Amino acid sequence: MERRFERDLDDLKKSLIKMGSVVEESIANALQALLEHDSALAAKVIEADVKINALEIEIDNAVVDLMALQQPVASDLRLILSAQKINNDLERIGDHAVNIAESARDFGTPPSKETFLELPRMAELTRGILRDALDSFILLNPKLATSVLEQDDRVDTLNRDMTRKVIEMIKADTKSVEAGLQVIRVSRNLERVADLATNIAEEVIFLTQARVVKHHAADGAVGS
Amino acid sequence: MERRFERDLDDLKKSLIKMGSVVEESIANALQALLEHDSALAAKVIEADVKINALEIEIDNAVVDLMALQQPVASDLRLILSAQKINNDLERIGDHAVNIAESARDFGTPPSKETFLELPRMAELTRGILRDALDSFILLNPKLATSVLEQDDRVDTLNRDMTRKVIEMIKADTKSVEAGLQVIRVSRNLERVADLATNIAEEVIFLTQARVVKHHAADGAVGS
Repeated sequence: MERRFERDLDDLKKSLIKMGSVVEESIANALQALLEHDSALAAKVIEADVKINALEIEIDNAVVDLMALQQPVASDLRLILSAQKINNDLERIGDHAVNIAESARDFGTPPSKETFLELPRMAELTRGILRDALDSFILLNPKLATSVLEQDDRVDTLNRDMTRKVIEMIKADTKSVEAGLQVIRVSRNLERVADLATNIAEEVIFLTQARVVKHHAADGAVGS
Repeated sequence: MERRFERDLDDLKKSLIKMGSVVEESIANALQALLEHDSALAAKVIEADVKINALEIEIDNAVVDLMALQQPVASDLRLILSAQKINNDLERIGDHAVNIAESARDFGTPPSKETFLELPRMAELTRGILRDALDSFILLNPKLATSVLEQDDRVDTLNRDMTRKVIEMIKADTKSVEAGLQVIRVSRNLERVADLATNIAEEVIFLTQARVVKHHAADGAVGS
């Protein structure tokens, strides 16, 4: 029984890592589709979401089976409940990849580089945060997880600046309204992705140090 | 042991119902603050979020204790896992109340009624959806829960129309950029609230009929 449980727990972790890498790829593809105006790649991201949703349900069912059959206690129970939360966070990150891909698709004409304002920098930062959050889970590394919390604050600041810059851009040229709204939409989606990656990092810190860091610091970064 | 478990389960349900009513009030207050330009009420909503976050952690801990001490199986286990998800959905609805309250606060001068476009109608619809979702959980009523899924589609449509209307508004008068962006922000937050209420309704349907309705229908309503 014990050995079966260890194996099941291991399989659960592997499934989550797989889901993490699929989601990470979707975010990367969505951003590339946006910045390089690649509508075929955008379509691919939107299609891939079906796979991510199926993975979420599969992992969710595995969690319930593991609980029902093995009735884990203490630290194993915590790990399984964290797995369930991370699973949900990853699925939501996948949804944001779809939103970004939709924005990529909805940019009628290839926008000029200037239109994107700070998006390329935000994209790079957010991808780094997501990668660190996933690595902190794979390695159960609380130090790496803590660095995610700090990086998240920078994305929040960039997101706030973005709105101001888009307003300036629209006032200077009304023809940029549609593009400006898409830029804000992507900016907010990136801010949410960084926020969800932060949730994952918080679970890792919780798992390794057993303290609640949820609703951390400013607590103002509740998405948009 | 059995009786203690029933009592704990009952307490958990009561805590969730309490959390539901606190969150529902926050959404109502945030919308009133916005539509009546009441910045004191907006500040109250932002403050109340601390309470909602504390409630979420309290319920989360109760869930873990219940699992660890009682090792529930089958339908009880499903109920507890659903409680955990609904708890998380409610906390997120609370975050959207904060976002709406922030928009209420950030409208510099009282906007004219016309500026809000379809927001009052969306607000009324979304509040109805949230109330029905919470009632469907309290009563474990799958029929009411199913009606939530249908109503959610109407909010999605309104949210999509809103972007088009805001673009027209800004093009007609560049001075309305700031207000227009806030209107879109609130519209998206309402769409997300309706989406989260739909998640709750899906859990209720799942609990009562044991089938997965997640990622329902169009599957396109992934927030923004």
